[in-house]
Amino acid sequence: MKVPYKPLDWDGHQLYWIDQTRLPTEMLVKSTTSYQEIIAAIKNLEIRGAPLIGIAAAYAVVLFLREYYPKTICKNLDTRWDEVLWEIGNARPTAVNLFNAIKRIQREIQKYPTKIAMDVALDVAQKVQNDEVKACDKIATIGSKICNQYSTILTHCNTGPLATGGVGTALGVIYKLKNIHKNLEVYVTETGPVGQGARLTVWELNQMGISTTLVPDNAVGALIQERKINAAIVGADRIVKNGDVANKVGTSNIACLCKQFHIPFYIAAPMTSVDTSLSKGDEIPIEFRNESEVFLKWAYPKHLQPKVFNPAFDITFSKWVTGYITDHGYFNLNDFKKHIKKIYLKGEVS
Amino acid sequence: MKVPYKPLDWDGHQLYWIDQTRLPTEMLVKSTTSYQEIIAAIKNLEIRGAPLIGIAAAYAVVLFLREYYPKTICKNLDTRWDEVLWEIGNARPTAVNLFNAIKRIQREIQKYPTKIAMDVALDVAQKVQNDEVKACDKIATIGSKICNQYSTILTHCNTGPLATGGVGTALGVIYKLKNIHKNLEVYVTETGPVGQGARLTVWELNQMGISTTLVPDNAVGALIQERKINAAIVGADRIVKNGDVANKVGTSNIACLCKQFHIPFYIAAPMTSVDTSLSKGDEIPIEFRNESEVFLKWAYPKHLQPKVFNPAFDITFSKWVTGYITDHGYFNLNDFKKHIKKIYLKGEVS
Repeated sequence: MKVPYKPLDWDGHQLYWIDQTRLPTEMLVKSTTSYQEIIAAIKNLEIRGAPLIGIAAAYAVVLFLREYYPKTICKNLDTRWDEVLWEIGNARPTAVNLFNAIKRIQREIQKYPTKIAMDVALDVAQKVQNDEVKACDKIATIGSKICNQYSTILTHCNTGPLATGGVGTALGVIYKLKNIHKNLEVYVTETGPVGQGARLTVWELNQMGISTTLVPDNAVGALIQERKINAAIVGADRIVKNGDVANKVGTSNIACLCKQFHIPFYIAAPMTSVDTSLSKGDEIPIEFRNESEVFLKWAYPKHLQPKVFNPAFDITFSKWVTGYITDHGYFNLNDFKKHIKKIYLKGEVS
Repeated sequence: MKVPYKPLDWDGHQLYWIDQTRLPTEMLVKSTTSYQEIIAAIKNLEIRGAPLIGIAAAYAVVLFLREYYPKTICKNLDTRWDEVLWEIGNARPTAVNLFNAIKRIQREIQKYPTKIAMDVALDVAQKVQNDEVKACDKIATIGSKICNQYSTILTHCNTGPLATGGVGTALGVIYKLKNIHKNLEVYVTETGPVGQGARLTVWELNQMGISTTLVPDNAVGALIQERKINAAIVGADRIVKNGDVANKVGTSNIACLCKQFHIPFYIAAPMTSVDTSLSKGDEIPIEFRNESEVFLKWAYPKHLQPKVFNPAFDITFSKWVTGYITDHGYFNLNDFKKHIKKIYLKGEVS
């Protein structure tokens, strides 16, 4: 599938990105040569989606090296290096792709003389990007086989090209299913408070000509009770060793309800979203976001502003997950745990 | 507890109401002598909450009789009567209090000569109103005993004076708990798409000086996972014979998650919300509301507008409910089913 827009693009000098906070009302492409501006764009959700922020982080490292390396001529690079990697890695702390991309650059750079660090970093950044595109293609192909009997599907948040740079994870599977089911109907949660479903997924499905129904986040229970869907497919920001998943807040609500009503619930994610250093979901750091994201909607006078509980992610426990659709294949929980152990022992993923 | 505002008021000639669509930014009191205007106000959520629309419906019947009775001198009243009762009763089809209030007037009117129909109707309307106020007081007292160990509570939608005319159902219990727990913390869902929690409950809790945290609807799972609450208390729009409950969409998500995490989940409602004519939750008619409620937030260009799934209510199955706090007492499921059977046999509730 050819994606008719590029959420992130590198021209050899600058990183370009679609400002996702403006969609669907405006298509604004921004660019920069500053790694700090990339960090800012990640933090304020102009660039978002676990795979895409992994790619952006890799290019941020490249731009950092380009900015500092000539000045320091290696001197002090080590100290500053650690600081900057920490800063980039923590732009958003929950998705692990970002850390994995940075670690990959670090590992590669160490193999070569310092003076070609920048070239090595750029090479790795481009590999990170290409690998995510390939991972999406594999996920879409594998997932569309696993899910070929489903013609009404619920998804949450945004997992398309905008989130991945490739065809998408959960949304990649859904795009492929359109070839099988001409009458495919996709139900998309609004995904409040920021509306990644309502704004971005609705826009991407519209681009693809797929029939879409928007579902207020509260209405997921009603949707499932009314048997409107025959499966749910979502992405992941981090998957840990026992199969627990951190994903956009609200995912656990959907997974728990699907389990109750015997509706299959799938995670679709690249193996770069796997964190082999953590054992259980409750060890994953959850990012809390500013209350202003919530207040925007309600225009409270100052004296009425309540406190706000605004986590960006929640934990979907493995007991609720029917299966994991990855670029390494489709797994049930037990096989997935074994596979994670295997790649950990091989040192393939951090 | 003295409520410092009147969501609904009758001065002998007109019905006054706070337009709840304007809160919390504006306190607009409207009034009318037209039953059609009351129906319109119920439909567009200016007057809302199962008990309150029951009261409003009763006064709508009074205003209808005042308008038509003198003209017809009884002639044709019977035909028109049925039409209007149907129209009022179906202003919002899910809450049963509205039908129950109308049926109560019908029953009483039949006992008296037609020429005093209007006086009888007014008398009954005032009784409906007073009874809801008393029911709230009982619910608050009974509930605060049952829930006295809970100091962090989740509630959904709005169940305070604005919804009931009295001190409230779930929110009435919460107000009383403030006397027991000085550090009471109430978590309120936004309750999208219309925001009855974010707009109305936040406002009412602020009036009462109760510490409040607003929770995006998607974040209920995260809230429960983080063990932020030790109980959830919500209202009901209709309860049927097997204990299933129709309540504001999103209630079933909360109930299902609470069950998974062993957090007590209570329904607080007057017995006027019980419908003894239906056996199971899936028999309850669910109102679907206009897509414009959802589109308001996202400002789609016309060509991007998706379909919308916008039910106003969902069904919370009795297996998820810890107990029922009512004006007839506190019941577990089995006792509640027996009690519903008893009052049905006595003919006390429709």
